[in-house]
Amino acid sequence: MNTYDLIMKKRNGAVLDKDEIEYIVDGFTKGTIPDYQMSAFLMAVYFQGMNAEETTNLTMAMADSGDRLDLSKINGCKVDKHSTGGVGDKTSLIVGPILASLGVPVAKMSGRGLGHTGGTIDKLEAIPGFSTSISEEAFINQVNTVGLSIVGQTANLAPADKKIYALRDVTATVDNISLIAASIMSKKLAAGADAIVLDVKVGTGAFMKELEDAKALANTMVSIGKLAGRDVTAVITDMNEPLGNNIGNVLEVAEAVDCLKGKGEERLMAVSKTLACHMLIKAGKANNENDALEMVNRVIDDGSAFAKMKEFVNAQGGDADALEDCSKLCVTKYSYKVTGKDLFDAASFNEDVGYLKSCDNQEVGMASLVLGGGRQTKEDVIDLSVGIILNKHLGDEIKAEDEVATLYANDEDKLKAATQRFVNAYVLDKEPCGKNPIVYEVI
Amino acid sequence: MNTYDLIMKKRNGAVLDKDEIEYIVDGFTKGTIPDYQMSAFLMAVYFQGMNAEETTNLTMAMADSGDRLDLSKINGCKVDKHSTGGVGDKTSLIVGPILASLGVPVAKMSGRGLGHTGGTIDKLEAIPGFSTSISEEAFINQVNTVGLSIVGQTANLAPADKKIYALRDVTATVDNISLIAASIMSKKLAAGADAIVLDVKVGTGAFMKELEDAKALANTMVSIGKLAGRDVTAVITDMNEPLGNNIGNVLEVAEAVDCLKGKGEERLMAVSKTLACHMLIKAGKANNENDALEMVNRVIDDGSAFAKMKEFVNAQGGDADALEDCSKLCVTKYSYKVTGKDLFDAASFNEDVGYLKSCDNQEVGMASLVLGGGRQTKEDVIDLSVGIILNKHLGDEIKAEDEVATLYANDEDKLKAATQRFVNAYVLDKEPCGKNPIVYEVI
Repeated sequence: MNTYDLIMKKRNGAVLDKDEIEYIVDGFTKGTIPDYQMSAFLMAVYFQGMNAEETTNLTMAMADSGDRLDLSKINGCKVDKHSTGGVGDKTSLIVGPILASLGVPVAKMSGRGLGHTGGTIDKLEAIPGFSTSISEEAFINQVNTVGLSIVGQTANLAPADKKIYALRDVTATVDNISLIAASIMSKKLAAGADAIVLDVKVGTGAFMKELEDAKALANTMVSIGKLAGRDVTAVITDMNEPLGNNIGNVLEVAEAVDCLKGKGEERLMAVSKTLACHMLIKAGKANNENDALEMVNRVIDDGSAFAKMKEFVNAQGGDADALEDCSKLCVTKYSYKVTGKDLFDAASFNEDVGYLKSCDNQEVGMASLVLGGGRQTKEDVIDLSVGIILNKHLGDEIKAEDEVATLYANDEDKLKAATQRFVNAYVLDKEPCGKNPIVYEVI
Repeated sequence: MNTYDLIMKKRNGAVLDKDEIEYIVDGFTKGTIPDYQMSAFLMAVYFQGMNAEETTNLTMAMADSGDRLDLSKINGCKVDKHSTGGVGDKTSLIVGPILASLGVPVAKMSGRGLGHTGGTIDKLEAIPGFSTSISEEAFINQVNTVGLSIVGQTANLAPADKKIYALRDVTATVDNISLIAASIMSKKLAAGADAIVLDVKVGTGAFMKELEDAKALANTMVSIGKLAGRDVTAVITDMNEPLGNNIGNVLEVAEAVDCLKGKGEERLMAVSKTLACHMLIKAGKANNENDALEMVNRVIDDGSAFAKMKEFVNAQGGDADALEDCSKLCVTKYSYKVTGKDLFDAASFNEDVGYLKSCDNQEVGMASLVLGGGRQTKEDVIDLSVGIILNKHLGDEIKAEDEVATLYANDEDKLKAATQRFVNAYVLDKEPCGKNPIVYEVI
């Protein structure tokens, strides 16, 4: 077997077998297949695609390229959750404590933010003292005692994915369903959970802009799970605007706390509860969505979910008391209130009343990044305190004097640049317009 | 402008403009664009193609990536000739002296053999004393005095092509018409001739296996020439079997000498004369093919073409007298006469009489390589004395006792291995079968 022949075979549209795919993944991970052959191969895959079996073989080879997390020392059915990424998506911080308070162990390895999307690890580090790097032993121990631990990726999980993703990122080979699915699922399979609930985002702030593409990705990942012997459900949710009101690391922690206290924004609560319900069902704790929803509402209403959040934060060295009044954490030097007039001016909109018709949600994410809350490259240092709080959502009526959002920054130039991006991200309409559904489909 | 966006643009099927193509060629040549981005780009080009303008811009950018040969000090119209490569193709050694003896200056930079195809420079080095590396000044001087010089590439001509080709060769992106045409034409344009006659080979021993593909390549190259302001003609010739009788470096010199003495094999003479005629017309020495053919026949018949060959060889330090009796040059330790029976046995052919229906001409070329006459990699050292002499051609009747060919080697194991490849390359038929045309089309 040699790399040249395999590139040629895929280029010519043939199907690669398990050994051939393993040869490529192993060779590239070990460095015997050079970058330039791998990038040609990936471009050939972009054009010729991979069938379900090839995609699963690719996923398995990538999952096997490094360590596999052994969660067997954790009691109970381990259910993992993964989001394909979006703006203002803090559901892990909400779902984790809910599940743990209902006796479902949550052992989660999370990532950092890159580009317009945030990362759970960064958000947690906005809590004073919180440590996201603890030993694997302490991690497992905490899940068994507290029921919940969220840490950065410590083990060498799916190194092939890391290396392949870095190459795809610079060779315009990112947007292929098989490659995206294999990237996500290889990490999830290596992370060792028994069942996985995927939150596949769709919309202007998501990787998948069209519902059809999101469905295709969701179906591909569910199918990989099936072939790999894991119980996988995918929930397709809206990302045509930020999820919830807050964007930015500490602001998202604050909003997650609000949700756990029962004061969450409607759409954010809907997604969080849907994910939590499906995880409860997978864990065998509920028979159907109605029962599950009742359980979820109960632990929010009686305060046990929030108490679990504090217990979890405390276990990882964080200042749990700070969560009682998050406004103390959310302090920046500068802020700017975006009014309806700002949006009207940016859009040269000459009516008295407008409606938020749509937004370029990626641009809203980029506005938060420009404030200092995100990374352009992995090396960038981020400002955990900055961000955006939205007062209005798509479909809302807007008058000139209305407060649409507030941007928080520690640098006036950044505040100005971010505000400009933010106001330009929205499209107004003269006529009232509907809201997007929040959960499109469960696969 | 950035590389990622240009890869994406081509991947999505858009047309790149001149600046964008120059950015890529310059960047890759200088090393600011890494191999892995270039190989992804090349694979995108493989799938999306390039239109005539893009292909010409690519060619020009590659031609401008290094030196351009200045042939202005050579008197008269400089006509270059280029073959896309084949087995037994020694036409440069025949056409060069013919043209020079008719007063057309021939200033040729040639290449070495790689894979199943031979190279003119290797062949010339089979003549004792012959030097293929002389200074540019001496090269031009010799063309002005002798009328003919053939040297290896000394100037830094089209370094972009060299680098791009090396990458295509290992990433399965060789067989794309635009990339092939740009590779050939960039070198030809940099080599400075006023007019170019291309010999586009088609058949089992050629890069282009199908006539349609060869025509497409020929048309693309003629179109590049036109857009680049050069007078280009392409002759499409057969490569479904070796050209002429001899394959191997010194053996091909010997056959070229036979041709110049008027004793050449019919098909080889037909191709050589066709190329020479078109070069004469381009140089303004003849008005039509009939006149040109008369001139060519004359310099062969009166011995002036062969005399020019000797003068040329002598000028480059070679032993011109050795050409009087080439059999003295063609000496190897071992030889094997392949009989009709050998072919019958290899093909399990149980008739008394068979006909040579077809051959895998690339395999015949590989048999010569296995004998030691060719290179697998650029670093291989070749044995200039070995090779194959054919007694039979496609369409010929074969009986068991007929001598089909003789293989010459200096190593018994190589002789055995090469013989096996050779006998397996031919397909026999019970019924008489026709011969392929030798010149398919002139474009």
